[in-house]
Amino acid sequence: MTEIDPTTRRRVLDALREQRIETPSWAYGNSGTRFKVFAQEGVPRDPYEKVADAATVHRFTGVAPTVALHIPWDLVDDYAALAGYAKEQGIELGTINANVFQDDDYKLGSVTNPDPAVRRKAIGHLLECVDVMDATGSRDLKLWFSDGTNYPGQDSIRQRQDRLAEALRQAYERLTGRQRLLLEYKLFEPAFYLTDVPDWGTAYAHCLELGERAQVVIDTGHHAPGTNIEFIVAFLLRAGKLGAFDFNSRFYADDDLMVGSADPFQLFRIMHEIVQADALRPSQGIAFMLDQCHNIEPKVQAVIRSVLNVQEATAKALLVDVPALTAAQRAGDVLEANAVLMDAYNTDVRPLLRELREEMGLDPDPVAAYKRSGYLERVTAERVGGQQAGWGA
Amino acid sequence: MTEIDPTTRRRVLDALREQRIETPSWAYGNSGTRFKVFAQEGVPRDPYEKVADAATVHRFTGVAPTVALHIPWDLVDDYAALAGYAKEQGIELGTINANVFQDDDYKLGSVTNPDPAVRRKAIGHLLECVDVMDATGSRDLKLWFSDGTNYPGQDSIRQRQDRLAEALRQAYERLTGRQRLLLEYKLFEPAFYLTDVPDWGTAYAHCLELGERAQVVIDTGHHAPGTNIEFIVAFLLRAGKLGAFDFNSRFYADDDLMVGSADPFQLFRIMHEIVQADALRPSQGIAFMLDQCHNIEPKVQAVIRSVLNVQEATAKALLVDVPALTAAQRAGDVLEANAVLMDAYNTDVRPLLRELREEMGLDPDPVAAYKRSGYLERVTAERVGGQQAGWGA
Amino acid sequence: MTEIDPTTRRRVLDALREQRIETPSWAYGNSGTRFKVFAQEGVPRDPYEKVADAATVHRFTGVAPTVALHIPWDLVDDYAALAGYAKEQGIELGTINANVFQDDDYKLGSVTNPDPAVRRKAIGHLLECVDVMDATGSRDLKLWFSDGTNYPGQDSIRQRQDRLAEALRQAYERLTGRQRLLLEYKLFEPAFYLTDVPDWGTAYAHCLELGERAQVVIDTGHHAPGTNIEFIVAFLLRAGKLGAFDFNSRFYADDDLMVGSADPFQLFRIMHEIVQADALRPSQGIAFMLDQCHNIEPKVQAVIRSVLNVQEATAKALLVDVPALTAAQRAGDVLEANAVLMDAYNTDVRPLLRELREEMGLDPDPVAAYKRSGYLERVTAERVGGQQAGWGA
Amino acid sequence: MTEIDPTTRRRVLDALREQRIETPSWAYGNSGTRFKVFAQEGVPRDPYEKVADAATVHRFTGVAPTVALHIPWDLVDDYAALAGYAKEQGIELGTINANVFQDDDYKLGSVTNPDPAVRRKAIGHLLECVDVMDATGSRDLKLWFSDGTNYPGQDSIRQRQDRLAEALRQAYERLTGRQRLLLEYKLFEPAFYLTDVPDWGTAYAHCLELGERAQVVIDTGHHAPGTNIEFIVAFLLRAGKLGAFDFNSRFYADDDLMVGSADPFQLFRIMHEIVQADALRPSQGIAFMLDQCHNIEPKVQAVIRSVLNVQEATAKALLVDVPALTAAQRAGDVLEANAVLMDAYNTDVRPLLRELREEMGLDPDPVAAYKRSGYLERVTAERVGGQQAGWGA
Repeated sequence: MTEIDPTTRRRVLDALREQRIETPSWAYGNSGTRFKVFAQEGVPRDPYEKVADAATVHRFTGVAPTVALHIPWDLVDDYAALAGYAKEQGIELGTINANVFQDDDYKLGSVTNPDPAVRRKAIGHLLECVDVMDATGSRDLKLWFSDGTNYPGQDSIRQRQDRLAEALRQAYERLTGRQRLLLEYKLFEPAFYLTDVPDWGTAYAHCLELGERAQVVIDTGHHAPGTNIEFIVAFLLRAGKLGAFDFNSRFYADDDLMVGSADPFQLFRIMHEIVQADALRPSQGIAFMLDQCHNIEPKVQAVIRSVLNVQEATAKALLVDVPALTAAQRAGDVLEANAVLMDAYNTDVRPLLRELREEMGLDPDPVAAYKRSGYLERVTAERVGGQQAGWGA
Repeated sequence: MTEIDPTTRRRVLDALREQRIETPSWAYGNSGTRFKVFAQEGVPRDPYEKVADAATVHRFTGVAPTVALHIPWDLVDDYAALAGYAKEQGIELGTINANVFQDDDYKLGSVTNPDPAVRRKAIGHLLECVDVMDATGSRDLKLWFSDGTNYPGQDSIRQRQDRLAEALRQAYERLTGRQRLLLEYKLFEPAFYLTDVPDWGTAYAHCLELGERAQVVIDTGHHAPGTNIEFIVAFLLRAGKLGAFDFNSRFYADDDLMVGSADPFQLFRIMHEIVQADALRPSQGIAFMLDQCHNIEPKVQAVIRSVLNVQEATAKALLVDVPALTAAQRAGDVLEANAVLMDAYNTDVRPLLRELREEMGLDPDPVAAYKRSGYLERVTAERVGGQQAGWGA
Repeated sequence: MTEIDPTTRRRVLDALREQRIETPSWAYGNSGTRFKVFAQEGVPRDPYEKVADAATVHRFTGVAPTVALHIPWDLVDDYAALAGYAKEQGIELGTINANVFQDDDYKLGSVTNPDPAVRRKAIGHLLECVDVMDATGSRDLKLWFSDGTNYPGQDSIRQRQDRLAEALRQAYERLTGRQRLLLEYKLFEPAFYLTDVPDWGTAYAHCLELGERAQVVIDTGHHAPGTNIEFIVAFLLRAGKLGAFDFNSRFYADDDLMVGSADPFQLFRIMHEIVQADALRPSQGIAFMLDQCHNIEPKVQAVIRSVLNVQEATAKALLVDVPALTAAQRAGDVLEANAVLMDAYNTDVRPLLRELREEMGLDPDPVAAYKRSGYLERVTAERVGGQQAGWGA
Repeated sequence: MTEIDPTTRRRVLDALREQRIETPSWAYGNSGTRFKVFAQEGVPRDPYEKVADAATVHRFTGVAPTVALHIPWDLVDDYAALAGYAKEQGIELGTINANVFQDDDYKLGSVTNPDPAVRRKAIGHLLECVDVMDATGSRDLKLWFSDGTNYPGQDSIRQRQDRLAEALRQAYERLTGRQRLLLEYKLFEPAFYLTDVPDWGTAYAHCLELGERAQVVIDTGHHAPGTNIEFIVAFLLRAGKLGAFDFNSRFYADDDLMVGSADPFQLFRIMHEIVQADALRPSQGIAFMLDQCHNIEPKVQAVIRSVLNVQEATAKALLVDVPALTAAQRAGDVLEANAVLMDAYNTDVRPLLRELREEMGLDPDPVAAYKRSGYLERVTAERVGGQQAGWGA
């Protein structure tokens, strides 16, 4: 390939221009492992400063116009004010993430806890998150439950499913209008024997039972080794049950590295399924979010890098020569079909993306522009005193 | 525990007496890896001799009264005659396994092949298998598809799902009476990039769509590393969608070792879920089958050992002190709940099983009795000439 | 088997009586995941209180007479005083663990950091740990490095090995008398792309280069999925390079659950290799340590349970009928050789261990005795105010 | 990057011109899984026809001038004649692979078999392979042992190591001149519990003991999930113990797919370590071999594709801006160091490789040229009758 014809170029540029990637408020705060959280300079101290960082990412990339919140990490008194501040900064508040894993009461689980009082408390928090959505105008309630057990016998697998189903039902029924419930799954961590929503099958089954506005979230780091993630993408798209992505990358477990940094070919294959199903456009209702930890690298710059990685994978996916691919597939020409796909993957799309940014009035090299902008130096000077945001604050 | 009170003893013995384990005809034939099939002495040369071996296993264990067939490996002209022979030998023909992976036409798939002619052929074979079921009186059609692709781009993931759904629909509609369709999943092998039914979620979703008599098969060797199999057991039991097990064990991939030989604690946890859901009794409709390869060890003896391993895990599961477990779970006493489970697991149930066999008029030590019986020596002498059965014959 | 003859019984009891299991000071403090540390009642606030907890475990089990320290978590002004206090409590101070992963300087590594100043600081800490050993009389310096990188290209793999070799050399040369350097490996976490000592091969190669008093530590939770740990045990024993174990168990990654709780059969196979190599006796120089986190279960009770689990696995390993096993192995009788091993594993050794404890003047049921003792209630009342110990304190 | 300056271009082209990739005779024969070997048209029927296929790959790629043999699969009466034929075809015979896994005697192992007579036979075969090397002028004896066990207890792990060491010693001592022994490791398959040489550490330890001309082979498909292969490359290069690669790729186990087809970024990282250590040049003594199975795709074309994949990864590795990388690494600039690496990876090197081929007098598009050549049609017509080569023939 290498040479991209003008029609394709235009089609790809238009699609990329429409693309939307949501960044998470918590990516701007401090994070780490159980061994150590290394603090960084210039880290936000409150949701407003996180919003400012997210807006900065959007200013340089042009495709990240919303920021996801995590409740209670992003608890504020006045969500309308926060939404207004975001608007001033040029972005909007996005998905609301309910956090039911950091209260001492949740030691043995939140919505699946054997104690009904704890379950009530957890469900109460889910409902409060919908209140927040009402205030922020957010469409999506994203639910990830850390619930599970560490030891065989610790609790009844089946009864925990019953409790989960009941909690989901209550949250779902609280939704109104176009609001959606997005259910995320994860193989393990922090639970080390049983996780109550460990895989896409479990999330899918519960969403089926709930109804149309319940959808599955795929976090790319939440699978067992060897899992073919693009299969899950294709399957859920076919079933109309893919609601969102939490993008990140990993070599081992839920490493939460920058998306595209560990296996860029996998990211491309995922985006290929999206493009094949014509599911890239925002109107299709799939939320493309980042969910990452920048434990050792500067955070805003890392988020910009991550947004670019998603863009590059998308551009390559958009370059796949579909008629040639389909013809080779139908003919059973294994090598040719694979070659058509690889041809797109092997194309250097960075010139195309520079062109896109110029069309959009952006600097063609967002990382360099960000570094030149002095933003980090400025917030490092300003954000002194107070408590840096992190998991839990 | 250690001491088992008389009431428990009686309850456990009664449950074990009712237990049924189906052995697979192909376990008696030669098998191996892609590197080598090591031939063994006394291996059957036809389905009749496989039935004789299966009957031998039942004679010594008392709980393996059926044998599963694999079509076309067990192709005969007259299934009624084969069924009659089985009956003479003291057993019955069980599950029919459709094999659509060994014809040259299936190189790029069977029911999901891009070529409609190949798909028709594959579906035709599925329907013929139901004909066999009509002749043998078998209840279950077990479907495992090796279908998938080796390279990204080779075929459309989504279209293969469409083709799969269509094939399953045709097979399901051909069923009558109490006949069931059992759908098996497998992470990988022989396909090395995409497998069309790679996980329980996929099998479950298709079975849901098909209807009540479509159920999922769990092969204990078909999961990604780290998968919590007993969770899947519990989930499918709760959903009424667990149809059968293919028991075996593995350290790495689909190693097909003797069940209980790699991780006996896992087998116990699986049987614990079965017992908790009261799903052990044959009337509950779960088929407990073996699906193993005895590549280097004598086959009949290995199958006997495997049946005993399932029995031992079941006996331990039946010994779990449910009131104590439930009380500890409800109290959130992690260590006590785990201890109750481990107490049962740590109990040596072999004396109890010897007692069971004596009650059933069997030798208390089936392996020793089998070895003393001279069966292997006899069939080794008899089964000379002809072609030993294996995968493909 | 089931019936154990008197000679075997005596031999096994004598071996079990000699067994020594070291508990780690940090198992008594609070721990958790990156998501949350759930505080527990009665948790120690300083190294003295940790020693008191370790002594309690020894008082009830009789086989845990030493406690490992973690520097700087267990920093005290006067180690001789701490050692004296331990002696009063009936135990001794054991292995010294150097911690070079919790200072902000170590964000990009400690001894392998690209910055020579950071490397000097880290090496300095290792040398200080030998000072502590001189003060406590500890034999072993255990080194685990969290060092590694998160992104490809971040640093030079090879130069990091050079730096590692240099740091190890300096630490090794500082040792005197019978002091040893024990090098631990780990697949990943907290580094998510490259870990500088990721596997036993790396640790072994460095220890070979260092000399005789450098030995490898096997942490049972630090391997890739599918790793045959008992192979590593056997290999290192044959090479004279196995220095110690960090026992714990895991279903997924480095879960740090109670040893024997996830795969008791694996623990038995490990102890079988130890027994076969006659390496159980303390004089053989293998240190058997626990390294666990009790995130949701009461800590002292969990440590007692863990010690019992190691004892039970050891007892089973000691019961293996070696002449029968060897005969079956030599004869190539796969099923019989496996059966001999399983016969020992399937034996309920709890009566034997109760007998052992009675001989040793202990309560036959250490968990029950501990619970009756009121220890937890007492320390919960006493340990009020101050800062509970955890990772980092 | 994108634009490559002329000096770099020249340096890269020169390095690529020198590169040598060995193709394996067995890649041209039929292969498959335990489930099915799908026969293909035009497959060679003897070693001469395999040599012809290998020569064809070299004719179109220009960098594959040797072919590895597998004894006894490539048994001929007169190796000098086969070598002469190869020369006529424009290539040479390369590495000799000893096969001690397909005789019925090897059911329980070859050189580690409990039966000394079987061990003697296996060692005899190794020595015969050195005879073949003497005849062919091959430098390298590559040893992969399928030896291991399927069940715990089946044999003594340690004694098998003793037997292995003895066999390796005898083979090593038989070598003369510049001949080398290359020892390959593999996690599992066909052994399913214990593999006697399961990891690089084991191979490395034995090679150390043998001496300078014993080196480790890295087969890229032979690792546990999550293994960082480029770490092993870097480590063995630093230790002077990396002898060769067996290239292929995998998503799951030892899938033996075309190199670079599953994770092209990993292949690039491996080649980056090679380039950093200046180990690409043939004079450095690292043998770069393919070891693949083309179960469903046309074989010669697939081998050509694989050679190109290695070339592309190498070209990218050669483009890494080393001064920039080193500067970023030293400065601890995580994102910049990663960006320098990714910049090279993201470059489309296909134009550069077309240029290389034109300089070498080759068609710039080897796959297209091969397809146009009519080679497959010709051999399909010619190679009729006789027995197609496969594993075992």
